[in-house]
Amino acid sequence: MKFGVVGAGRIGTIHGGNIAARKDCELVSVADADAGAARALADATGATTASVDQIMESKDVDAVAICSPTDTHADLIERAARAGKAIFCEKPIALDVGRIRNCLEVVRSTGATLMIGFNRRFDPNFAALRKRVAEGAIGRLEIVSITSRDPGPPPISYIARSGGLFRDMMIHDFDMARFILGEEPVAVSAMGSAVVDGAIGEAGDIDTAVVIMETKSGKVAQISNSRRATYGYDQRVEAHGESGMIHVGNVRETTVELGGAQGFTRDKSLNFFLDRYDAAYKIELDAFVAAVKSGAKPRPDGDDGLKANILADAAYQSWKTKQRVAIE
Amino acid sequence: MKFGVVGAGRIGTIHGGNIAARKDCELVSVADADAGAARALADATGATTASVDQIMESKDVDAVAICSPTDTHADLIERAARAGKAIFCEKPIALDVGRIRNCLEVVRSTGATLMIGFNRRFDPNFAALRKRVAEGAIGRLEIVSITSRDPGPPPISYIARSGGLFRDMMIHDFDMARFILGEEPVAVSAMGSAVVDGAIGEAGDIDTAVVIMETKSGKVAQISNSRRATYGYDQRVEAHGESGMIHVGNVRETTVELGGAQGFTRDKSLNFFLDRYDAAYKIELDAFVAAVKSGAKPRPDGDDGLKANILADAAYQSWKTKQRVAIE
Amino acid sequence: MKFGVVGAGRIGTIHGGNIAARKDCELVSVADADAGAARALADATGATTASVDQIMESKDVDAVAICSPTDTHADLIERAARAGKAIFCEKPIALDVGRIRNCLEVVRSTGATLMIGFNRRFDPNFAALRKRVAEGAIGRLEIVSITSRDPGPPPISYIARSGGLFRDMMIHDFDMARFILGEEPVAVSAMGSAVVDGAIGEAGDIDTAVVIMETKSGKVAQISNSRRATYGYDQRVEAHGESGMIHVGNVRETTVELGGAQGFTRDKSLNFFLDRYDAAYKIELDAFVAAVKSGAKPRPDGDDGLKANILADAAYQSWKTKQRVAIE
Amino acid sequence: MKFGVVGAGRIGTIHGGNIAARKDCELVSVADADAGAARALADATGATTASVDQIMESKDVDAVAICSPTDTHADLIERAARAGKAIFCEKPIALDVGRIRNCLEVVRSTGATLMIGFNRRFDPNFAALRKRVAEGAIGRLEIVSITSRDPGPPPISYIARSGGLFRDMMIHDFDMARFILGEEPVAVSAMGSAVVDGAIGEAGDIDTAVVIMETKSGKVAQISNSRRATYGYDQRVEAHGESGMIHVGNVRETTVELGGAQGFTRDKSLNFFLDRYDAAYKIELDAFVAAVKSGAKPRPDGDDGLKANILADAAYQSWKTKQRVAIE
Repeated sequence: MKFGVVGAGRIGTIHGGNIAARKDCELVSVADADAGAARALADATGATTASVDQIMESKDVDAVAICSPTDTHADLIERAARAGKAIFCEKPIALDVGRIRNCLEVVRSTGATLMIGFNRRFDPNFAALRKRVAEGAIGRLEIVSITSRDPGPPPISYIARSGGLFRDMMIHDFDMARFILGEEPVAVSAMGSAVVDGAIGEAGDIDTAVVIMETKSGKVAQISNSRRATYGYDQRVEAHGESGMIHVGNVRETTVELGGAQGFTRDKSLNFFLDRYDAAYKIELDAFVAAVKSGAKPRPDGDDGLKANILADAAYQSWKTKQRVAIE
Repeated sequence: MKFGVVGAGRIGTIHGGNIAARKDCELVSVADADAGAARALADATGATTASVDQIMESKDVDAVAICSPTDTHADLIERAARAGKAIFCEKPIALDVGRIRNCLEVVRSTGATLMIGFNRRFDPNFAALRKRVAEGAIGRLEIVSITSRDPGPPPISYIARSGGLFRDMMIHDFDMARFILGEEPVAVSAMGSAVVDGAIGEAGDIDTAVVIMETKSGKVAQISNSRRATYGYDQRVEAHGESGMIHVGNVRETTVELGGAQGFTRDKSLNFFLDRYDAAYKIELDAFVAAVKSGAKPRPDGDDGLKANILADAAYQSWKTKQRVAIE
Repeated sequence: MKFGVVGAGRIGTIHGGNIAARKDCELVSVADADAGAARALADATGATTASVDQIMESKDVDAVAICSPTDTHADLIERAARAGKAIFCEKPIALDVGRIRNCLEVVRSTGATLMIGFNRRFDPNFAALRKRVAEGAIGRLEIVSITSRDPGPPPISYIARSGGLFRDMMIHDFDMARFILGEEPVAVSAMGSAVVDGAIGEAGDIDTAVVIMETKSGKVAQISNSRRATYGYDQRVEAHGESGMIHVGNVRETTVELGGAQGFTRDKSLNFFLDRYDAAYKIELDAFVAAVKSGAKPRPDGDDGLKANILADAAYQSWKTKQRVAIE
Repeated sequence: MKFGVVGAGRIGTIHGGNIAARKDCELVSVADADAGAARALADATGATTASVDQIMESKDVDAVAICSPTDTHADLIERAARAGKAIFCEKPIALDVGRIRNCLEVVRSTGATLMIGFNRRFDPNFAALRKRVAEGAIGRLEIVSITSRDPGPPPISYIARSGGLFRDMMIHDFDMARFILGEEPVAVSAMGSAVVDGAIGEAGDIDTAVVIMETKSGKVAQISNSRRATYGYDQRVEAHGESGMIHVGNVRETTVELGGAQGFTRDKSLNFFLDRYDAAYKIELDAFVAAVKSGAKPRPDGDDGLKANILADAAYQSWKTKQRVAIE
C-alpha cells in the first residue's frame, strides 16, 4: 500500500514514520504548506515532497493520511474520496456538524474507505478494557468514568482556533465513552471554568470541565478534563458493571520506586501523547491497513467522528446555557 | 462525660461501645423501642436501659447520642437541646429541609451543642487528604472527584423510607465534597437509573447515579454512586489542584498479593462501613467529646447537615426534572 | 481467666492492656522491679501491683504473662510452671540453648501450658499467607523470602545484652521461616556487617545481615535484616511454589497518594512494631486464651522457641566462622 | 557502521533486526550453520548470507555480533579481534574461566573493542536504579537483593550443555550485583535444589537457588533464582542504602486491573526476555555503536564477562561442596 501524507507536523511525522517502517506499506509523498517540514519528513522516510494536488492525482498513491490543520480536513477527505483513495484522517472531521454531514455524504456516495484517528481506542490498555467488557468480564455495564488531563495548556493561539475544550480535547473522551458504552448517550450536562489559566477564559474557553451523560437503557458516564497535570499525562478509564469493575491506570516511565523519609515515590505518568500512545498509533495503522486490504469497513469511521462531535457540541451548549442538553 | 444513647441498632451499638470504652466517658443509659436491643447494648456496656423520657430528664446524662431512625432525629434533637444536653446525632437531621431549619432554630435558641455524624470526615485517609489540601500540598483546588459504592443494595423496605439515594447515600458524598472544596456548590446536575435492581426503580428510587457540581469560583466536583460493588465497599476521593493531585484509595483486609496464572490478585476492599470506618467512628467521638469539654463548636454541625441536605434535594430535583438546579 | 503480668515495660503494657480489655479475662496483678512502671500499668488496667512471689503464689492468678528482661524468662517460666500457671512468655526463652532445654524440661514435667510470643505469626497479613500456602494456593512450596528492617538501631547498651542481631532480631524471621516452610532447615549460611553504625561493630555485633537456609526436601529460604529503614518498619514475606507466589507487603498509615512534579508519593510503612503488630498482639492473646480454655497445646510453643534459637545460634556461628553450618 | 551477525537464532534475530532498523548501521551479512535461519534473517533485513570466514575476512564488515552457541564464543571473539572487527558478543565468553582469560588476552593484545551482552544493564528500569544509586539517592549502599525467575525451564537438552543454573541463568544476576554494588564480592555462599523438575536434578543441575555474597567494605547481596514462574518473567532488584531504598518491579502487559468477587487482579509480568528486554536490546546496541564510534571502551566488557563467570563458578563450587567460597 502506497501512502501520501498531507501535513508533516507533529502527528504527520508520527504517522509518516509508522507508515515508512512497515514492510507492507510505502510512504511515497508528503505535502505540507511548510516546505521545510515536508522536506524533513520526506527525507526521514525516503519519500518525496509533493503538492496536495499531486498526491490526489497520483496513480501511485493508494491511501492518504490527512494530518493537516482541522479546518482543512473535510475538504481533503472529499477530494481524496473523489480521487478514489483510502482515507485516514485525524480527528475531527470538522468543527461544524453540518460540514461533517456534508463531507460524510461525499464519502458515502463515493464509497470511499474512511477511518478517523481516535487513537486511544488502540491503546493496548483501553483496548484490553473494551475487550474484557465486551467478553462480559464485569457483566452488564453500568457506569463509565473517564479522566483525561494534559500536562499543560496549549498556546492561546491554538486555543482560539481549536473549537474549545469540548471539541478539541474532550472529543477523545466522548469517543472513548461511546467505544466502551456500546450505546449512544441521550443527554449531556457539562460544567467548567478557566481556573488553570485566566487567559484561556478571556479567549472564551475553559480549561477544567466535568461532564455527565446517560443512555436510554440507564447507563451513565462521567468525564473529567483539565488542561494541566503536574504529575504527567493523565489518561484513565474505569468501567463498572453488575459483577465487577475494570480500571485502566496510567503508564509510568519505569517501575522504579524510591523509599525514604518522604515515603515511597514512583515515576510520573508518561508525559504526553507521543509517549503514552506510541503503540496505539502503530496499532491504529495496522487496523487501517488491514481494513483497506480486506475491504472491511474500518472503525472508528466517519459516523464515529460525527457522533463524537455531536456530543462535544451538546456539552458546549450545556456549558454555555447552563442547561442539560438532550441528544436526538 | 455521661452519655445516653437513643437507638440501639447497628450504629447505636457502635457509638455505645466506643463511648463505654473511653476512660473519660460513661454510657449510663440506652433507649430503644425494641427492648431486647436496648438490653443487649446496655449489658455489653454496663449501662442501664431507659425510656427516651428518662434519658432526657436525667440529671445524670450530659450528652445524648441519637442513633434512632431518621424520622425521629429532629424531634429528639429539639428535646435534647431543651433539656440542656450536648447532642451527637446521626445524619440526616431530617429528610425535609424545612423541618431541619426549624430544628436548627431550636438548637440555636437553646445554645445547645450539636454535632452531626458525617463519619467520613474522620476517616484517617480522607482527613489526611483534607489536611494536605488545606496545607497547600496541591495549590489552589480545582476538581474534586468522589466515588462511593456500597457492597449491595439495602432491603426494598429500607429504600422506601430512606428518602432515596441522594438523601440517604449520596448525602455523605455531598458532605465530603463541601468538606474538601471549602466552598459551597452553586449548581447541581444529576443523572441516574435503577440498573442494579429493578425493584428499586419500581419503588421510585435509583441505585446508580452521577452528579456534577460547581462553585462560584469555578471549582468543580463529580460524584459517582452505586448501590453495588462486588469487590468490596468502594470509597475513594481524588482532589486536583494547580500543583498536583491527592488520591485516597480503598483499604484492603490484608496486604497479601497472590501471583499465578491468573495474574496478580489482591484482596477486596474492606467490605462495609463498620470495617472501613471503624477508626473514623472513634475519632469522631474524640472530636465530639473534645468540643463539648472545651466549649468549642463541633464540626460537622447542624449547618453542615442542612447544607448536605440542600445539595441532596437539588440533586433529586435535577434527576426528576432533567434540569440543572441552582442553589441559592 | 485471671492474669498476672511480670514486667510492665513497653511490651508488658501492650499485653496488660489487651488482657484488661477482654471481657473473658481480668488483669489482677502487675509486677515490675520499677515500682512506678508497675503502678502505671496497674492503674491503667484496674489491677493491683504485686511482687513476683505474690503473683506466683496467688490462688487468684490462672495465667502469667512474662514480659520482663530476657535473662529472667527461663527462671520465671520454671516458677510459673511449678506454680501451675498457664504461661505466656515473650521471646526468647533464653539466649543459651542449654538453658532453654532445661527450662522446657521443667515445663514438660509439670505439664504446664507454655506459649512463646512470636507475635508475627498472628499478623493478619502473614497469617493469611500461611493459611493460603497451607491450603495449596501456590502448590508445593519452593522458596521463602523474608525481609525485616527496623526503623533504626536500638541503643548500644541494648545491643550489648541482646545476644546480637541473629538472636535478638532475626530470631523472629527464623520463626517466620519455620512457620511458613513447615519443615526444619538443615543448613544455614550467614553474612553480615556493621555498616549502619560503627559502634555496633565495636560492640561485637552487626546491623546488616543476609542468611540462606535449606531443608531436607530442597526448599530454600532467604532472610535479609537491617537495623535501619528510613521509609518505616519493613516487614515483608514472599513465598514461591510450583503454581504461584504470595507476597505480603508493608502496611501504610493511610492510602493517600500525592501526585506532583516529584512523581507519585505514598506513605511510609507503619513505623514500628507497636503499630504494625497492634492487631497481632490481640490475636496472639486470643490464641493463648483459647488454648488454655480448651486445654489444647498452644503454638508457638517452647519447642518453637528452642528451634528458632538453634537457627539463630547457627547463623551466628556461620557469620563468625565464615562457614556454612549444618543443623542436626 | 557495517555489521556481520554470526548466529541467526532467537537472539541473533533480535540484534540483527535492531541493527538493520538503525539509520547509522547496516546489516551486511549473516552466518549460521543452519542455512535456512541465516536466509530468513538476511531476507528480513536486506542482508546477504555468508560464511563465518567471509564475515571475518570482509573489508565491508566493521563490527561482528556474535550470537552463536556459547562454545563458539571465545574462538569467534579471537578471530574477530585478529580481523580488526569491533565485537559484540552474547554472554558468556566461555564456560571455562581459563578459556575466558586466554580469549581476553587476545582481545587485549589486538586492542580490539569488545562488549559483552549483559542486556539487563540497559533495561530502563534497572538503569534508572543504578543511576539513582550512583547519584546518591539512597546514600551509601548496604544491601542489594535480586530476584530472577524464568517462566519455565528450558529443555533438558539445553540444561545439559548450559553450564548449569549458576553459569547459564544466575550469571545475569551476578553481573547485575556487580553493576549495582560497584565493588567486587569477596565471598559467595549458595544453596539450591531441583524441585521444579526432577529431570533437571537427574541431569546434575538445579532449578531453584539462593545465593548470598559480601564485599570487602561490608555490603551484602542476595540472589534468588527459579526456572519457573507461573505469573510471568520475574525480574526485580532492590537496593538498600543509608537513606532509603530503591525497588524495581516487574513490567506488566497493560495497566488493566479487574475488581470483582475474587479481589483485584492485575496482569501477569511480561512473559519473557524478548518482551521485558525489548528496549534494553536496542539501548545496548546504542551503547555499543556509540563506543565504537567514539573509540571509548564499552561496558560491560570482557573483564565484566570474566568476573561474572568467576562468581558463577564460586557459587557452583559452594553448592557442590556445601562450603562458603572466597573469591581472590
